[in-house]
Amino acid sequence: MDVIADICVIPLTGSISVREPVARAHQVLIDAGLDVQLHAYGTNVSGPMATVLAAIERIHETLHAEGVPRISTSIKLGSRTDKRQSMEDKVEAVRERIGSGG
Amino acid sequence: MDVIADICVIPLTGSISVREPVARAHQVLIDAGLDVQLHAYGTNVSGPMATVLAAIERIHETLHAEGVPRISTSIKLGSRTDKRQSMEDKVEAVRERIGSGG
Amino acid sequence: MDVIADICVIPLTGSISVREPVARAHQVLIDAGLDVQLHAYGTNVSGPMATVLAAIERIHETLHAEGVPRISTSIKLGSRTDKRQSMEDKVEAVRERIGSGG
Amino acid sequence: MDVIADICVIPLTGSISVREPVARAHQVLIDAGLDVQLHAYGTNVSGPMATVLAAIERIHETLHAEGVPRISTSIKLGSRTDKRQSMEDKVEAVRERIGSGG
Repeated sequence: MDVIADICVIPLTGSISVREPVARAHQVLIDAGLDVQLHAYGTNVSGPMATVLAAIERIHETLHAEGVPRISTSIKLGSRTDKRQSMEDKVEAVRERIGSGG
Repeated sequence: MDVIADICVIPLTGSISVREPVARAHQVLIDAGLDVQLHAYGTNVSGPMATVLAAIERIHETLHAEGVPRISTSIKLGSRTDKRQSMEDKVEAVRERIGSGG
Repeated sequence: MDVIADICVIPLTGSISVREPVARAHQVLIDAGLDVQLHAYGTNVSGPMATVLAAIERIHETLHAEGVPRISTSIKLGSRTDKRQSMEDKVEAVRERIGSGG
Repeated sequence: MDVIADICVIPLTGSISVREPVARAHQVLIDAGLDVQLHAYGTNVSGPMATVLAAIERIHETLHAEGVPRISTSIKLGSRTDKRQSMEDKVEAVRERIGSGG
């Protein structure tokens, strides 16, 4: 089953800068072979659900192993059986209707 | 690695009532042997991360197999290495401070 | 318009303990006169949408004023026009179906 | 207070296609004068918190007025007092570190 997911990792490190662990998490998603799109409040990925979930588990393992004591990750997971839809399809489906309503 | 998770399944069924698939999702979490707490906007669970993630995958598989064509699930996953903390501990840690600030 | 909301405040304080600012946020929701239910991964509230949103803004203002430099808050907001539904109704609607599916 | 927000509107319409109300919601954010970036699982906006929250309320009002009976919106709201940061800054801060870890 393929999913499109939105993943936002918040590491609690004792520092208010989170960019290094967040970049590390992003790299784990890339290394998992997923299609990955960084945005301003997280990372979207698409791929097989088992691969996506395994990558999320690896993010927690990796960050903890590198010294991050506490992590809160927000995830949205979307799957559908009625048609295949890429991340680009989802954006395009909305974009083509914007402004068309009058 | 143990996690505490918050899981909110939104099935898009062609009906605005979602209670049956939401109850089904909740049952999958119970059947996975997780510690489960229903609340007004989702279900909290605690247990091993692999078990939690496998249960989430099974929710999508189960609901799709039962005819739900589209699902969007929101998840929060929290893990920490500095101490063990149950769902009750988390609630209690906040509750004992409420009203104590003057 | 009434809403049911789920609010999870993550303060980035330079400490990994978040219980004090989280309790402070919870208190702001109580002080706003909302119906409030603490759970293991956030707080559910119900009330008029304008009151809920104003309370969320006050949480950020209050925590920043008390020295929290960075806050990431996750919110789910549910509204419906087809019927009135309390937080208890939502939990009960799911609970009465659990185990009834066979 | 300025915020960066991630907004994902899920309308429950009795249809599994959500693109029209989702595009309508996106238009409300543009009409509010916010800086808006559509992505594959929602829309990021930046601007004054009061403007962002008022636009979210208007989305619910607009969609209900146009016949959507039930809406569940997921929001992430980030604010910080230590520095100003645009949506582009956030993406760039992560991007410049990807692959730099060896």
